[in-house]
Amino acid sequence: MKISARNVFRGAVTGVTAGAVNAEVELTLPGGDTLVAIVTEASIRALGLAVGKEAVAYVKAPWVIVLTGAGEARFSARNQFAGTVERLTRGAVNSEVGIRLPGDAVVFAVITNEAVMELGLEEGVEATALIKASHVILGTPA
Amino acid sequence: MKISARNVFRGAVTGVTAGAVNAEVELTLPGGDTLVAIVTEASIRALGLAVGKEAVAYVKAPWVIVLTGAGEARFSARNQFAGTVERLTRGAVNSEVGIRLPGDAVVFAVITNEAVMELGLEEGVEATALIKASHVILGTPA
Amino acid sequence: MKISARNVFRGAVTGVTAGAVNAEVELTLPGGDTLVAIVTEASIRALGLAVGKEAVAYVKAPWVIVLTGAGEARFSARNQFAGTVERLTRGAVNSEVGIRLPGDAVVFAVITNEAVMELGLEEGVEATALIKASHVILGTPA
Repeated sequence: MKISARNVFRGAVTGVTAGAVNAEVELTLPGGDTLVAIVTEASIRALGLAVGKEAVAYVKAPWVIVLTGAGEARFSARNQFAGTVERLTRGAVNSEVGIRLPGDAVVFAVITNEAVMELGLEEGVEATALIKASHVILGTPA
Repeated sequence: MKISARNVFRGAVTGVTAGAVNAEVELTLPGGDTLVAIVTEASIRALGLAVGKEAVAYVKAPWVIVLTGAGEARFSARNQFAGTVERLTRGAVNSEVGIRLPGDAVVFAVITNEAVMELGLEEGVEATALIKASHVILGTPA
Repeated sequence: MKISARNVFRGAVTGVTAGAVNAEVELTLPGGDTLVAIVTEASIRALGLAVGKEAVAYVKAPWVIVLTGAGEARFSARNQFAGTVERLTRGAVNSEVGIRLPGDAVVFAVITNEAVMELGLEEGVEATALIKASHVILGTPA
């Protein structure tokens, strides 16, 4: 299976919180990084998602927000990945930024070149990737 | 009314599942393709959405993920549109891919040129478009 | 704190509607424009969001849909910002459109150049920005 999403995270389901229409699923990656997704209850059933089950999370890079110097700022985005900029690929208007997390996963974001400058992003700089849980698509391995 | 979203699907509401804050709405397009949207209960009331009512679904092309060779892989995205690549418009960094569905609707996705190559996309290739239900905006006709 | 999201709206929480997993939060900006976000209940607690509390809403420009001549058309997107095009920055494929709202906030959208032409967007034209509540990330100030 090949997929256009730049972020593909394989891991194990370590939590499921049910709601009426939606449910929150926690995925723990091999290095210990965790990721939260909001999916429908119908999907939970269709995929048979449960604690201990293997799953894959997909996120398109343009859906990821990058920030630096968070200080006391806090965010509703359930996924706040603090790491270090490892790769920076510049295009004409946008750049792709790869942020290496403590558990060794890399999160890719596509942001404007203007933002890259404003945030002073370059290899080795500390940065945080924000991913809203409702933007994560879950799957089960092929 | 003119709108910047590349995907505009007109159809009839064929299902509404209520929740506390959100509801799931199923839209059936003229050719039989179906699409699921998650909207707030407040929107259900404001738009008067109910089974049998006409509605329009809007999705921006960068919100669509494309995949090939799904095999046994399954996904939480409620909208999984298997079809055939009909159009491919390349830009400097991204391409627009049009996937024709069995019911004749066309779904447009914007993905990176890198992904186009990795997936081997070209006219006539079978591919699937994933659209998360919570990314769909519903409307009623002007 | 610096962030890659092009839309950063500071305001005061003027409403919170709780659900099982998600909650709807209304933010009122200094000029009176209001914005609705859907975030998880867990985030409501983590950020201590409550009526009267200061908060910041973040939205990436590619999440914003632009439309003109809405007429009788209605939309599920909780955020429908009618205003006037104030800025238009063209790239090779996409343009950034800034829409000034009555309360003086500016909403930025990234849309295709094709859409800019179809909608006849230029400075001074009336246009509406649609933002789905579930695409808004909330934060508390640094």
